[in-house]
Amino acid sequence: MDKEEQDKLKKQAAVRAAGLVKSGMKLGVGTGSTVAFLIDELGRRRKEEGLKLKAVVTTSSRSKKQMEEWGFKVDELSSVTQLDLTIDGADRLAANFDGIKGGGGALTMEKNVAVNSQKVVWIVDESKVVDRLGGFPLPVEVLPISCEQNFQRFKNAGLNPQWRMSGKERLVTHYGNYIVDLNVDPVPVPEGLAAYLDHTVGVVEHGLFLDMCEEAIIAHSDGTIEDRQK
Amino acid sequence: MDKEEQDKLKKQAAVRAAGLVKSGMKLGVGTGSTVAFLIDELGRRRKEEGLKLKAVVTTSSRSKKQMEEWGFKVDELSSVTQLDLTIDGADRLAANFDGIKGGGGALTMEKNVAVNSQKVVWIVDESKVVDRLGGFPLPVEVLPISCEQNFQRFKNAGLNPQWRMSGKERLVTHYGNYIVDLNVDPVPVPEGLAAYLDHTVGVVEHGLFLDMCEEAIIAHSDGTIEDRQK
Repeated sequence: MDKEEQDKLKKQAAVRAAGLVKSGMKLGVGTGSTVAFLIDELGRRRKEEGLKLKAVVTTSSRSKKQMEEWGFKVDELSSVTQLDLTIDGADRLAANFDGIKGGGGALTMEKNVAVNSQKVVWIVDESKVVDRLGGFPLPVEVLPISCEQNFQRFKNAGLNPQWRMSGKERLVTHYGNYIVDLNVDPVPVPEGLAAYLDHTVGVVEHGLFLDMCEEAIIAHSDGTIEDRQK
Repeated sequence: MDKEEQDKLKKQAAVRAAGLVKSGMKLGVGTGSTVAFLIDELGRRRKEEGLKLKAVVTTSSRSKKQMEEWGFKVDELSSVTQLDLTIDGADRLAANFDGIKGGGGALTMEKNVAVNSQKVVWIVDESKVVDRLGGFPLPVEVLPISCEQNFQRFKNAGLNPQWRMSGKERLVTHYGNYIVDLNVDPVPVPEGLAAYLDHTVGVVEHGLFLDMCEEAIIAHSDGTIEDRQK
């Protein structure tokens, strides 16, 4: 599939997901190339159909800017009690709807938005859909203060850690932390690994998004769009 | 007991704890009025007895400054593989050696230092010693992005949250976060509460220090110093 066909498919999936957005909603908006098409569709509906959102929270400054360009006011998550719906991408989606996110490095923000949403919908292309979680490095955001110790801890635990780089330097997150990517494929007992990471002192957040998503809009390479419910 | 007697007792406890420090050690140094006496004793030994430490990590800039004034070089935790010994204070010490820390707001740094130490010793006066953990607010460091949601979550869970203030503003931690103090007395099932807090998205760290300390130097009001082993 060439770029043009890919974009057409992403746009179709985005328009399908946008159909879930109703006026009056408090909406969480993720980040990524497909979400960019979603925002354009929401903007079009605002302009042509008078779509009004009660609140909007984004997981990146890029999405914030794009929403604002379409005339939406963007809020801070902490000022919104609970979002009605969040639409985001994902790096992996398992058969049980667990996922891996954080390939873009914004996992902490993304997870905070997700857990404070009544419903989470992911838009993915079929290459992200797996039976069991795996096939993608699992990002872990760590405090710099104990990052070397935690890197070693992950290594000793057989989790094959790798520093996320930005050129020749370690990537620094929005919160001033580092990201360690764990190369575990498939992820062995995701709930167990999540509990281990949650418990590890110096870990701010990790990319295991378990029991959060309940609907996925999947763009298949044959050109069909699947709306899969948990 | 007046201030002078209290200080004398603190100093005695600090000198006793300092006895655990040997030349060649990688040492973690906490914060507080008793630890300040400990640092002075270490400084005296450096000057008079040639005490040499292989590495020093402190949990506050105050302790760092005091150690440096005595001529010790202070390192970053991440540059030291594992500390041999950390001596710190604690806000509560239970019979099973679990503790509450973070009354000073530095719980994240303190816990990162503690878990990366082979041995942790706390110096406390007997007013901090309890049978079951309680009698002191349990601090939780939260990301600002979802702090309102987490405050409400703690409230709904019956944890009686309160914002840690600095004058009329919320206290901002070293990491740019807020602290919520949970008023739970006694702490119901500390392991369970710790797991809940570890798992809560937006929680950076909490003040339950479970299974970390293995020796306590306790200053009793009758003037005796007790060295209690786990």
